[in-house]
Amino acid sequence: MKETKLPKVAIVMGSDSDFPVMEAAVRFLKDFEIETVVEVCSAHRTPDKASKFAKEAADQGFDLLIGVAGMAAHLPGVLAAYTVLPVIGVPVKASALNGMDALLSIVQMPPGIPVATVSVDGGLNAAILATQILAVGYPRLKDKLKDYKETMARKVQEKNLALQKKLTDG
Amino acid sequence: MKETKLPKVAIVMGSDSDFPVMEAAVRFLKDFEIETVVEVCSAHRTPDKASKFAKEAADQGFDLLIGVAGMAAHLPGVLAAYTVLPVIGVPVKASALNGMDALLSIVQMPPGIPVATVSVDGGLNAAILATQILAVGYPRLKDKLKDYKETMARKVQEKNLALQKKLTDG
Amino acid sequence: MKETKLPKVAIVMGSDSDFPVMEAAVRFLKDFEIETVVEVCSAHRTPDKASKFAKEAADQGFDLLIGVAGMAAHLPGVLAAYTVLPVIGVPVKASALNGMDALLSIVQMPPGIPVATVSVDGGLNAAILATQILAVGYPRLKDKLKDYKETMARKVQEKNLALQKKLTDG
Amino acid sequence: MKETKLPKVAIVMGSDSDFPVMEAAVRFLKDFEIETVVEVCSAHRTPDKASKFAKEAADQGFDLLIGVAGMAAHLPGVLAAYTVLPVIGVPVKASALNGMDALLSIVQMPPGIPVATVSVDGGLNAAILATQILAVGYPRLKDKLKDYKETMARKVQEKNLALQKKLTDG
Amino acid sequence: MKETKLPKVAIVMGSDSDFPVMEAAVRFLKDFEIETVVEVCSAHRTPDKASKFAKEAADQGFDLLIGVAGMAAHLPGVLAAYTVLPVIGVPVKASALNGMDALLSIVQMPPGIPVATVSVDGGLNAAILATQILAVGYPRLKDKLKDYKETMARKVQEKNLALQKKLTDG
Amino acid sequence: MKETKLPKVAIVMGSDSDFPVMEAAVRFLKDFEIETVVEVCSAHRTPDKASKFAKEAADQGFDLLIGVAGMAAHLPGVLAAYTVLPVIGVPVKASALNGMDALLSIVQMPPGIPVATVSVDGGLNAAILATQILAVGYPRLKDKLKDYKETMARKVQEKNLALQKKLTDG
Amino acid sequence: MKETKLPKVAIVMGSDSDFPVMEAAVRFLKDFEIETVVEVCSAHRTPDKASKFAKEAADQGFDLLIGVAGMAAHLPGVLAAYTVLPVIGVPVKASALNGMDALLSIVQMPPGIPVATVSVDGGLNAAILATQILAVGYPRLKDKLKDYKETMARKVQEKNLALQKKLTDG
Amino acid sequence: MKETKLPKVAIVMGSDSDFPVMEAAVRFLKDFEIETVVEVCSAHRTPDKASKFAKEAADQGFDLLIGVAGMAAHLPGVLAAYTVLPVIGVPVKASALNGMDALLSIVQMPPGIPVATVSVDGGLNAAILATQILAVGYPRLKDKLKDYKETMARKVQEKNLALQKKLTDG
Repeated sequence: MKETKLPKVAIVMGSDSDFPVMEAAVRFLKDFEIETVVEVCSAHRTPDKASKFAKEAADQGFDLLIGVAGMAAHLPGVLAAYTVLPVIGVPVKASALNGMDALLSIVQMPPGIPVATVSVDGGLNAAILATQILAVGYPRLKDKLKDYKETMARKVQEKNLALQKKLTDG
Repeated sequence: MKETKLPKVAIVMGSDSDFPVMEAAVRFLKDFEIETVVEVCSAHRTPDKASKFAKEAADQGFDLLIGVAGMAAHLPGVLAAYTVLPVIGVPVKASALNGMDALLSIVQMPPGIPVATVSVDGGLNAAILATQILAVGYPRLKDKLKDYKETMARKVQEKNLALQKKLTDG
Repeated sequence: MKETKLPKVAIVMGSDSDFPVMEAAVRFLKDFEIETVVEVCSAHRTPDKASKFAKEAADQGFDLLIGVAGMAAHLPGVLAAYTVLPVIGVPVKASALNGMDALLSIVQMPPGIPVATVSVDGGLNAAILATQILAVGYPRLKDKLKDYKETMARKVQEKNLALQKKLTDG
Repeated sequence: MKETKLPKVAIVMGSDSDFPVMEAAVRFLKDFEIETVVEVCSAHRTPDKASKFAKEAADQGFDLLIGVAGMAAHLPGVLAAYTVLPVIGVPVKASALNGMDALLSIVQMPPGIPVATVSVDGGLNAAILATQILAVGYPRLKDKLKDYKETMARKVQEKNLALQKKLTDG
Repeated sequence: MKETKLPKVAIVMGSDSDFPVMEAAVRFLKDFEIETVVEVCSAHRTPDKASKFAKEAADQGFDLLIGVAGMAAHLPGVLAAYTVLPVIGVPVKASALNGMDALLSIVQMPPGIPVATVSVDGGLNAAILATQILAVGYPRLKDKLKDYKETMARKVQEKNLALQKKLTDG
Repeated sequence: MKETKLPKVAIVMGSDSDFPVMEAAVRFLKDFEIETVVEVCSAHRTPDKASKFAKEAADQGFDLLIGVAGMAAHLPGVLAAYTVLPVIGVPVKASALNGMDALLSIVQMPPGIPVATVSVDGGLNAAILATQILAVGYPRLKDKLKDYKETMARKVQEKNLALQKKLTDG
Repeated sequence: MKETKLPKVAIVMGSDSDFPVMEAAVRFLKDFEIETVVEVCSAHRTPDKASKFAKEAADQGFDLLIGVAGMAAHLPGVLAAYTVLPVIGVPVKASALNGMDALLSIVQMPPGIPVATVSVDGGLNAAILATQILAVGYPRLKDKLKDYKETMARKVQEKNLALQKKLTDG
Repeated sequence: MKETKLPKVAIVMGSDSDFPVMEAAVRFLKDFEIETVVEVCSAHRTPDKASKFAKEAADQGFDLLIGVAGMAAHLPGVLAAYTVLPVIGVPVKASALNGMDALLSIVQMPPGIPVATVSVDGGLNAAILATQILAVGYPRLKDKLKDYKETMARKVQEKNLALQKKLTDG
């Protein structure tokens, strides 16, 4: 049964320069006690490793893959081509074109091979989405997600109070 | 334990005119024996229903929501705001701006509330992604997904053979 | 009759980081003696508060709402969904995509639920537009708006004179 | 007091070819018993008429102007330059660039002279927004707007029921 | 006969903040002994002045107008609406949208009222184009333009030589 | 003196498929008694002819060139590179990218070599702009342009009357 | 030595629906006596075949690969990842986004793995570019390319003559 | 036979300010013992030199040309118009429009005259592509390219190891 093993996620980045986009994600997943492997692995420079990684991911116990890439960002699509695990794609702003190239390269996947795309540089959202997906099989995550949602709401409220104070003191 | 219930998905469309984009998705989910509810429910015209639907979705047994909308496509984001279930967003081409408006309105969700976005008019991919996500909790789906992937590959091969024949005869 | 109460406006921002965009607006509305409430309230992180705020806005004496948000900027549309008060939307540049995402997310509202959209980061214009709208019910504002328009014109003339001097001296 | 006169709106179109975009708007305003004048008047081909119209609009009893134009759509901005009445802008898809030219020409107004912009070809929304604005001074419109909103919601529900029936029968 | 008067050009800027874009232009026109008037005059904030300026421009001896503006850049089009003199438009990068808003607002003029548009921030090119246009009526400018063209070519050659030297020394 | 010869314009098109975009222009120039030569001449397929044409244009008595092209529309820029005559550029919608490719290829000319760009498919405006430019040297054109402007204004008025009638009868 | 074997090219298409874009290319290559293999082979649906094809391409005697794909068009980049042969990419218009998605997915390849990109739907140009590249190793192609260039120029001239005739007769 | 001469490439830049984009390319080509000439030569400011250079390039022993330019980047297309050698185009970000102008001006070449386009500011990729193309005629380059590819892969692996260490050390 599922709960006998820990949920396990891989973050695969096309370049180590993509890491700052994913730092908050790594922390989030750790906080949620989700085993997280981070790999630098390029769809274009180390294609064999990328495809091998995706092919074996299910057998290695991974529940889900997060592909992170800029420019002609093929990595999430390449991962999705080789696995039936859900693949989340994070477009990175890494060129003159402001990440629009990466966004379209990831989200516009042709029929048959979807990639669950989040916003440009949306590393944290990739981690949250990953956790929501894992919660389908690991129910304990659902309560933690609800807590997180409530904490977010509380923080917005606190910021609102701080602003009210500032405006009154103003 | 999970497998005692059927996986269950809601497709929530901002307008009944979005249905053609989702017809292949409905068929796909039916083929995979995933219980599928289809609702017309606008984030703007019936906001209370949309938020109520999302709030109660988990308790109603839904595992995942698919939001489908065009123009300033807020529906998937609104659903995601009210649930911790994973939400897939399908941008629909429904205005002069060719779906770019819907795509950005869905994929560029701010930190904290992700929507798993697929391509413009990518209804089928939303269904496949939904199934991949459900497979995290319903393992039997994994084998069916592998079969589907193999069938897709075979169809490409058949189309290739047909083209070779045409080129030789041609 | 209308003039027995002060005109009253709410500026609702998706994040406190949007405040710099609205500072000139707050000053403008204060100068016009329009009661102005500023709230941080996210369509996605505090959706219940956002919808409640919009639902009760008319009863709370608000004449008009200004929604301010970046990225997939749903806040103005969410407010508009819950009220028949006029809603002004201010798209904020808050992502790699330079505010185009926020602009399309706000201006491309589907038939039935309009949002009066101003330019990206156009906080001051939102305040002026709000005042023009309020003047429909609070006629005293009309004269102040005319004065403002004349002052603007005079300032352009002064800048012109300064430039002429610079060119002659230059 | 306000209610002694009828609310009065002008729809000013840059070209008679823009009329189809505004037909639903004209019907809407008529249904709401708002006096509506429709003018063809180009910012570029009849600039004197356009500026004269805007200058005199308040004295002619107009409460609000709607400017409708395609391509380099200056008309709403030109109207706004000559009046302190609120001006709504409707960008029209009228060139190879799909209305993006008209949208940016209208929404990106510089500080000082706002135009309340609706979606590309969003004629109906312009009429609804106009009515919401007029309701600030003509309270009877508020109830009619609430009815309209409820009717819209009901229609979405009816379409939902029709779809459910189709899916069940289908 | 034409040559009895000096050629005369007006540079009309929507804001004094546009001046840096036009400094090289002012110098160029001075070098070519073209009388140049520079005005700050907004299509939106001082519309009467803008239209009056354009209407009287021919009688004031102007041969050509250059309109300079950012955002929803209506100024060149407004000038063109009131004169049959040729009008050159210079889109200025003055908003989050990188000048694309100004470019489309200027170049996409509807049939009947053209504006001769140059590149975003292309002040110098506006001056050169102005001189080419004036040369139709002031033939002496033609030779100076040829000299300028030759000087440009020579400068490219010099830069090439400098690069060759750098590469050889390098 | 200028008026002893007729004004003379060349319309140079990159492809004969561009002709429909220019038919109204040819008629306009004929109506204004401007000698007009139309050439099909590609910057890429017949570059020698294009450069020769531009080099000799002034000596052949041309006062101005109009370059018309789609896709990577280099023709107007190539003409401008070889002459000091004013060059008008007409971007043509001739690819999947809706003329945005042609527009940027023409309007974004680098410093030193301007092209006076009109709207996508703006053939008629190119002819009007050409006439305005020619009027700098051929004063008789100025009066005809004023007549044309008045006729345009009258036509707008007539269309307005027709619409009023339709609305009244309607 | 090279000339002992025929030049050999593969056209690899992501879908058989891309074939119309490549038909002129196939004819062109046949006319130039270049051995041409056409394959339907998807980067996403048959990734193993695509990578195997690219890996073995050099040993199979291919001199160059042409990858053809729409949407998130990864195929050319995937081929390039697995070979040092030159890879030409043809973006296909196959979605609501008019081929801009495919263009950016192909041309914006990250440092290290280039794809020689041609225009959207530019099948014929891919064939011509392929031939120019092959001519580096197969000198006989150079003369044929010169002939082709001359024929193109002649055809432009013929079209010019036809237009002149039409204009004269017209 | 080919191998008796060195492979020879020209890098032609529209401006010396483009050189930083090409420095890595110059080094790469030098490392591969490819004779490399670098020229500053503008399609617009020195058009005769550009066309002469391209016309004579084959006779001067060049195997391939690389054209580098920003804004309305015509240089690669102009080179391609005058030669049957393969021409690689490098779009440079050199204006407010972030290189999108240069990209479309280069990649969207009309049928008949292709330019092998690489990414915006993709100087290094131009050099690698050039080498892949030259390898068709200079087989010794193929092994060096394979080595380069392996080195790239190794570097990705090293970066991966460094990241693993950093994550473990935390």
